[in-house]
Amino acid sequence: MKRKLRMGMVGGGLGAFIGSIHRMAATMDGQVELVCGAFSSTSEKSKASGEALYLPPDRVYDNFEEMIIKEKALPEGERMDFVSVVTPNFMHHAPTKMALENGFPVVCDKPLAYTLEEAQEIRDLVHSSGLPFCITYNYTGYPMVKQARDMIKEGKIGKIRKVIVEYPQGWLNDRLEDTGQKQASWRTDPTKAGIANCMGDIGTHAANLAEYVTGLEITEMCADLTSFVGGRELEDDGNTLLHFNNGAKGILHASQISVGEENNLHLRVYGETGGLTWDQLEPNTLTYKTPDTVSLLRTAVGPISGSASLHTRTPAGHPEGYIEAFANVYLNFLNTLRSYLAGEEPDERFLDFPSVDEGVRGMAFIKTVVAAGKSDQKWYPYEKY
Amino acid sequence: MKRKLRMGMVGGGLGAFIGSIHRMAATMDGQVELVCGAFSSTSEKSKASGEALYLPPDRVYDNFEEMIIKEKALPEGERMDFVSVVTPNFMHHAPTKMALENGFPVVCDKPLAYTLEEAQEIRDLVHSSGLPFCITYNYTGYPMVKQARDMIKEGKIGKIRKVIVEYPQGWLNDRLEDTGQKQASWRTDPTKAGIANCMGDIGTHAANLAEYVTGLEITEMCADLTSFVGGRELEDDGNTLLHFNNGAKGILHASQISVGEENNLHLRVYGETGGLTWDQLEPNTLTYKTPDTVSLLRTAVGPISGSASLHTRTPAGHPEGYIEAFANVYLNFLNTLRSYLAGEEPDERFLDFPSVDEGVRGMAFIKTVVAAGKSDQKWYPYEKY
Amino acid sequence: MKRKLRMGMVGGGLGAFIGSIHRMAATMDGQVELVCGAFSSTSEKSKASGEALYLPPDRVYDNFEEMIIKEKALPEGERMDFVSVVTPNFMHHAPTKMALENGFPVVCDKPLAYTLEEAQEIRDLVHSSGLPFCITYNYTGYPMVKQARDMIKEGKIGKIRKVIVEYPQGWLNDRLEDTGQKQASWRTDPTKAGIANCMGDIGTHAANLAEYVTGLEITEMCADLTSFVGGRELEDDGNTLLHFNNGAKGILHASQISVGEENNLHLRVYGETGGLTWDQLEPNTLTYKTPDTVSLLRTAVGPISGSASLHTRTPAGHPEGYIEAFANVYLNFLNTLRSYLAGEEPDERFLDFPSVDEGVRGMAFIKTVVAAGKSDQKWYPYEKY
Amino acid sequence: MKRKLRMGMVGGGLGAFIGSIHRMAATMDGQVELVCGAFSSTSEKSKASGEALYLPPDRVYDNFEEMIIKEKALPEGERMDFVSVVTPNFMHHAPTKMALENGFPVVCDKPLAYTLEEAQEIRDLVHSSGLPFCITYNYTGYPMVKQARDMIKEGKIGKIRKVIVEYPQGWLNDRLEDTGQKQASWRTDPTKAGIANCMGDIGTHAANLAEYVTGLEITEMCADLTSFVGGRELEDDGNTLLHFNNGAKGILHASQISVGEENNLHLRVYGETGGLTWDQLEPNTLTYKTPDTVSLLRTAVGPISGSASLHTRTPAGHPEGYIEAFANVYLNFLNTLRSYLAGEEPDERFLDFPSVDEGVRGMAFIKTVVAAGKSDQKWYPYEKY
Repeated sequence: MKRKLRMGMVGGGLGAFIGSIHRMAATMDGQVELVCGAFSSTSEKSKASGEALYLPPDRVYDNFEEMIIKEKALPEGERMDFVSVVTPNFMHHAPTKMALENGFPVVCDKPLAYTLEEAQEIRDLVHSSGLPFCITYNYTGYPMVKQARDMIKEGKIGKIRKVIVEYPQGWLNDRLEDTGQKQASWRTDPTKAGIANCMGDIGTHAANLAEYVTGLEITEMCADLTSFVGGRELEDDGNTLLHFNNGAKGILHASQISVGEENNLHLRVYGETGGLTWDQLEPNTLTYKTPDTVSLLRTAVGPISGSASLHTRTPAGHPEGYIEAFANVYLNFLNTLRSYLAGEEPDERFLDFPSVDEGVRGMAFIKTVVAAGKSDQKWYPYEKY
Repeated sequence: MKRKLRMGMVGGGLGAFIGSIHRMAATMDGQVELVCGAFSSTSEKSKASGEALYLPPDRVYDNFEEMIIKEKALPEGERMDFVSVVTPNFMHHAPTKMALENGFPVVCDKPLAYTLEEAQEIRDLVHSSGLPFCITYNYTGYPMVKQARDMIKEGKIGKIRKVIVEYPQGWLNDRLEDTGQKQASWRTDPTKAGIANCMGDIGTHAANLAEYVTGLEITEMCADLTSFVGGRELEDDGNTLLHFNNGAKGILHASQISVGEENNLHLRVYGETGGLTWDQLEPNTLTYKTPDTVSLLRTAVGPISGSASLHTRTPAGHPEGYIEAFANVYLNFLNTLRSYLAGEEPDERFLDFPSVDEGVRGMAFIKTVVAAGKSDQKWYPYEKY
Repeated sequence: MKRKLRMGMVGGGLGAFIGSIHRMAATMDGQVELVCGAFSSTSEKSKASGEALYLPPDRVYDNFEEMIIKEKALPEGERMDFVSVVTPNFMHHAPTKMALENGFPVVCDKPLAYTLEEAQEIRDLVHSSGLPFCITYNYTGYPMVKQARDMIKEGKIGKIRKVIVEYPQGWLNDRLEDTGQKQASWRTDPTKAGIANCMGDIGTHAANLAEYVTGLEITEMCADLTSFVGGRELEDDGNTLLHFNNGAKGILHASQISVGEENNLHLRVYGETGGLTWDQLEPNTLTYKTPDTVSLLRTAVGPISGSASLHTRTPAGHPEGYIEAFANVYLNFLNTLRSYLAGEEPDERFLDFPSVDEGVRGMAFIKTVVAAGKSDQKWYPYEKY
Repeated sequence: MKRKLRMGMVGGGLGAFIGSIHRMAATMDGQVELVCGAFSSTSEKSKASGEALYLPPDRVYDNFEEMIIKEKALPEGERMDFVSVVTPNFMHHAPTKMALENGFPVVCDKPLAYTLEEAQEIRDLVHSSGLPFCITYNYTGYPMVKQARDMIKEGKIGKIRKVIVEYPQGWLNDRLEDTGQKQASWRTDPTKAGIANCMGDIGTHAANLAEYVTGLEITEMCADLTSFVGGRELEDDGNTLLHFNNGAKGILHASQISVGEENNLHLRVYGETGGLTWDQLEPNTLTYKTPDTVSLLRTAVGPISGSASLHTRTPAGHPEGYIEAFANVYLNFLNTLRSYLAGEEPDERFLDFPSVDEGVRGMAFIKTVVAAGKSDQKWYPYEKY
C-alpha cells in the first residue's frame, strides 16, 4: 500500500504530555500523517490545537463523537485510517468504543479504561470486530527489552526464580495537584483516574513489563498501598510481593513520593543459570550476568536478537530513547494495520505490540492490587477478567 | 505561517544512514513534510527510495540538478521550501551551491565540503544571498550540551583552563571497507571523503562541540595522526594537543580503531572554580563539579537553563536521544526559516544552530589537523579561512 | 595507655574467611597485636594456624576453654585484653559466654548466636558485667553510611516515608554445599546456622543497616521465604514488606540465588523532602536527591559529617573498601575498650559501634522473618526480645 | 622463617599522609611489625610520633643517620629488617643511600629521588649490593590492574595500538600552599619536589601504570606543561602525546587544577582485537571490549588470572581499595625479602613489585617531560638513564 496512513486523535491538545508523544511516535518513520482530531474538552481549545498542528479547520472537531461520525462519512481515500485515544483514563472507554463500533482501528493509551468492566467491553468489541487495536504499554518497545525477552525465551538464564520490578518517581512528594498542574490533578482524582493513582499510572507499566519480558503471569500478590501526602484520596506509593505461575517469586513497587527519582523503571530477572537487569533511564544497556561473567549488551552492538535489531533505528553509539521506543509500539501496530487494510495476514514479527488482552489484564492488575492492599489476606489472587 | 514546511532531499536513499536521521529529525515536531528528493546516484535507486518514502513519482528526481530546476519551476505553494543535502562529503558542494544559487535554503550534513576552498565558496554564497543555511553539527542539539554552554556563559566554572574532548570509535579496527560496507568505503576513500577520514568524520564534531560549549577558539595545535589499519590511505586515529584563544590548554582525540567504543563523544571542561563533564552515550546527564561538590544535572530536572528547556520534548525521566538532539538542530533552523519566509526578524533563541561559519571553520579544522600531523612544527596555527 | 591492645581469637583458622578479615580490621590502625588463639575445631589445625600467624606455640590453644582459662592465669601485662569470636553461628554462644564470665571483653561476629534465647543470655551477661562488647555489623562502618545517618538526623530528607534495602547474592544458585565448600556447607546446615540461612547471614545485615541509617525500628513485616535449590532445608531467598515505627513503609529482600550478584547491599531512604541512596559495591559515593537536584557525596570530599571524617583514613580519591569499614567497627570498639581499661568514661564519638542490643535485635529479626514467612498472617509483629 | 619482619621508617610522622599508608600496607597481612623510626625533621616531633605508634622510646630516633647506625648495632634478632623511606622527594636519596650502604633493604616512596642523577646512584647501589629494593608505584598493586596486564600478555587484545592514561586531580586549583597545607607546600616547592610538581607527583604514576600494564616503553613524547595558578613555579598541569616502542601511540595527561576531580587515574588500552579500561576510583572493575562484546571483569569473580587472585584478600563483592593495593606492593616485596633473608631464590610470583629500575625510569620520565615541555621540538626522545 503505497501511501501514508491517516491518523486521527482524541485528546492531546496543546500542553498535554502524552498526545505529543503519540504524534511523534506515530510519525517517526514517515508512514503516518495526522489528518484530524478532537483535541480537547472545549471546542475552542481543540481548534487552537488543530491549527498549531497545521490541520485544516474542517478536520478539527469539537468532540470525538463529531469526529467519528464525520470522518466515517468521508470518502475512503480521505478519512482517517485509525484513531489514537490519548485522554485521561476516564475518557478512554467512550471514544474507543465508538471508534470500534464505527469500524476504526484504535491505539489507546494505558490503562485501557476507568474500570475493569469497561475494559472487558472494549475487549469484546475488538475481538468481535477483528479490528487492529493497540494499547501503549510503551516500555516494551525498547530494543533491549526485546533483547531480554528473546534471551529468556532462548533459555539463556534458565527457569526463572525471581523477578524484581520497580517504578519509583518523586514528582508527587508534595501536593502538586493544588497548584493546578494538569498531570497531577487528574491522576490524583478518583473521578478521572479510577480506583488507583500510582498503581494505575505506573504500577501497571511495571507489571506489564515484567510479564512481557519473562513470559510469566502473576497469579497472586500481597500489597501495601499508601497515600503519604495529606488529603490525597488515592495511593501515591505501593509495595507488593508477587507469585508467578511457574513458581517464581517477585517484588513490584511503584511510587510517586520517592523524592528525586524520575522514571526509574527498573527490572531484574534471575533464573537458575543467569540474570538480566534493565534500567529505563539508561535503556540502551542490558546487563547479563552468569555466575562467572557480567556482560553489557548494547543497542545495535554485536549479535543482538532479530527482534531487538528490527526495533533499532540507528547504528551503535546513537542513544535511542523514550520516543523511539514509543515509536516501536506504533511501528508494529502500523505494519499490522497495513496488512489488515490490505486484507493480508499480518507479519508475525510485527504482532509484537500490546494488545487489548494486555489492556484488560492491566485493568485486572489495578483491581487486584487495590483489593489486595485493602485485604488482610496475605496472598490475594489475581482478579478474574 | 500556518502550514508545514516542504523539504527536499539530496542523497539519503534506502539503506543510507544519515538521510534517514535527517528525515526523522526534520519531521519530529510535525512542522515538516518531505515533498521531493534526488536520493541516489542512480535514477533507479532514487525512484525506489522515493516510493518507499510515499512520494509521488513526479517529485522523485534522477539527480539534484533536475530536482532544483523542476522544483524551482513549481508554483510557490507547492515547491520545496528548503533542501537537505545528505550525500558523502565530495557531493556536498555541488548541490548546495546550486540550491543556494536558485534561492533555496539549505541544510547540509557535515563536513561542509570536500575542500576548504569549496566551503569558502558556499559561505560566500550564503552570505551574499542571505538565505538560511544550517550545517548539522548535531551534538550541539542535546539539552545538556546547551546547559553546559549556558553555565559557562554565566561564569559557573570561572575562566576556562583546560578542555578535553574525545571521540573514540572502534568500528574500523579492521578493513571493513573491503567487505563493501558503504559507510566504511567512502569514508576511507580520499576521492570521496577528502584529505581526512577520522578527523573529518568525527574529529570535526569533537572540535565543534568543544568550541560551542566553551565559546573559545582553538588557535594552534600539535597533531599525531595515524593510519593503523594496513593499506588505508587516510588516518583512522588522531591525537592532538590544543591551545585556545584565552590561554586554555586542551586535548582532542578521535579514533576509529579504539575497539569496542561506539560513539563515545565525551567532553570535559575545567575552569578556575568548577568543572563540567558530558558524555554522548548518557546524554541526559551533565556532571558539574566544584572543589566541594558533585552535582548531576539532568534533562528536564530542576532549574535547568532556558535554552536546555527549549530543546527538551518530554518531562524528566524520559530519555531523549540522538534523534531528538538532531531534531533540535532542525527545530531551530526551521523556526528561523519560518521567520525568513515571513519576512520577519528571526527569534534570537532559535538562531542557536550551526551556521555556515561553523561549517567553514570545521573545514579549516580538517586542513589544520592534517597539516599539523604532517608537520615537524610543534605548534601549528589554525588555517586561515 | 601507651601500649598495643592484645587480641585473642576463637575460630578463624587458615582458610577461613571472616577470621582473616577480623585480624586485618583489628590491626589496621596499629593499635592491636594478636597474641593468642584457639583457631580451629582440631588441635592440629589450630596449631598450624597459630604458626602461620607467627604466634608462639604456648599461646596457641586447642580450644576456647583452654584459651580462656590459661590466658586468665597470665599476668595482667601479658594476657589478652579481649577476644574475637569468629566461628560459625552455632559456636558463638559458648566462647562468648565463657569469655564474658571470665572478665574478657568480646567482639563477636554476627548473628549473635544460634537462637534468640542464647542471644538474650549473652545480653544479660554483658549488661551485668559492664564489659565492652561489639557485634560486627560491619556495613555500618562505611564513612558514607555514617554520612547518610548524620544527614537523616539533621533532617536533610525530612520525615522518612519509604525504605528499600536489598542484599542480593548469587553464589548459592546451585548446590555448592555438595562440593564441600566450607562457607556454603555450614550456612545451609540448620544444625550450624540456626533457623535461617539467607536471612541470618545477610538479611540481618540489611535490616541492621536500614535501622542504623534511619534511626527507625521495624515493627511488623510480611515475609515470603523460599528455598529454591532442591534439597536445601533452609531458605536461600526472601522478600519482605516492612512497617516502621514512624509509619514509614519498606521493602527488604535478600537472596543467594540472584545469579551474578556479588554482595549488592543497597539502601534507599526517601523522606518528605529528599532521598538517599547507597551501594556497598561503590561504597564511597552517597547519592542525595531533592526534588530539584542530585548530588554525589564522596568519601573525604567537601563538607562531610564529623562522623564520616572520623572514619576515613585517606584523602579524597583513595577508595576505601570493605576492610577499612570493618576496621572502623574495631576502631570504635578499641577506643571504647581503652577507656574501659583506663577506668574512664568512653568518648561518645567512639560508642558508634554495634552493641549487644543490636545483636539481640538481629536474632529477633531472624526469628520474626522466619515466623512471618511461615505464617498466613499478612502483618507479623516483631518478636519480643 | 617463622617470625614477623621488623620495619623501620624514615619520615611519616603524625599528620603525614603517605607514612600512615605505608604502615597500614606493610602490616595488613600480619607479617610485619614496626619496630623503629625517625619520623620527623625535629627530634620532638619524632618522639611524639613514636609514642603514638606505641614504640619504645629507645627505638625512636632523632634522625635517619642515628637510626641506621644504632639499628645496625643491635643484635640480629632485634634490629630492623628493612627501612621504609616516606619523606618528601628531596629527602629520599640520603636515607636510602645510607640504609643500603649499611646493608638494609629499602622500600622508598616515589619518585625515587630529587634528581635523575641521585636515582642512578641509588640504582647502582642496589645492583651492587644485591639488596631487595622496592619503590611504591602502588597503583600496580590493584588486582584488576594485574588482570589487565595478564590479559595483554596472553594476547587478549592483540598488538597494542593506542594507550590513553590520565591522572586528573583538582585539589590545587587555588593557592592551597599559601594556607600552610603541608602536602601542597612541598609539592609546589622546587627545592623540595624537584624539577616537576604535577608530573613528578602523579604524571609519573600514570606513565608507570601504562608501561606496567602494556609491557611497552615510551620512546618519545610531545609535552605541554602549564602552571595555571599564579605565582606557582612548577607546573600544575600537563598534556602529552606519546610514542611507544612497538609503534603504538598514546596520550598522557595529569592535572592538579581539574576542579572536582579526586584521583581519577584512568587507563585505556586498545589493541588490534580488543580494548581494556580501568579506573582507579572503581578499581574492582576492568572493562574488556571486543568489537562485539563488553564484559565487566570483577575482582574475585569468575576465572580471573592467577596474579589477580594472588593479590585479592576477600571473596567477590567485598570492595578492595587503595590500602589493599598498596599492601600488595608490600606483600610481594616482603615475600621476596623473606627469600633473601633465608638465602633462597625468590618466588617468581612475588617479584611482581616495582624495582629500582622502575624508579630510575620514573625519574627519567620526569626529566623528559619537563625538557619536552620546554622544547620546541615536536618529538622529544626519552632521556637516557
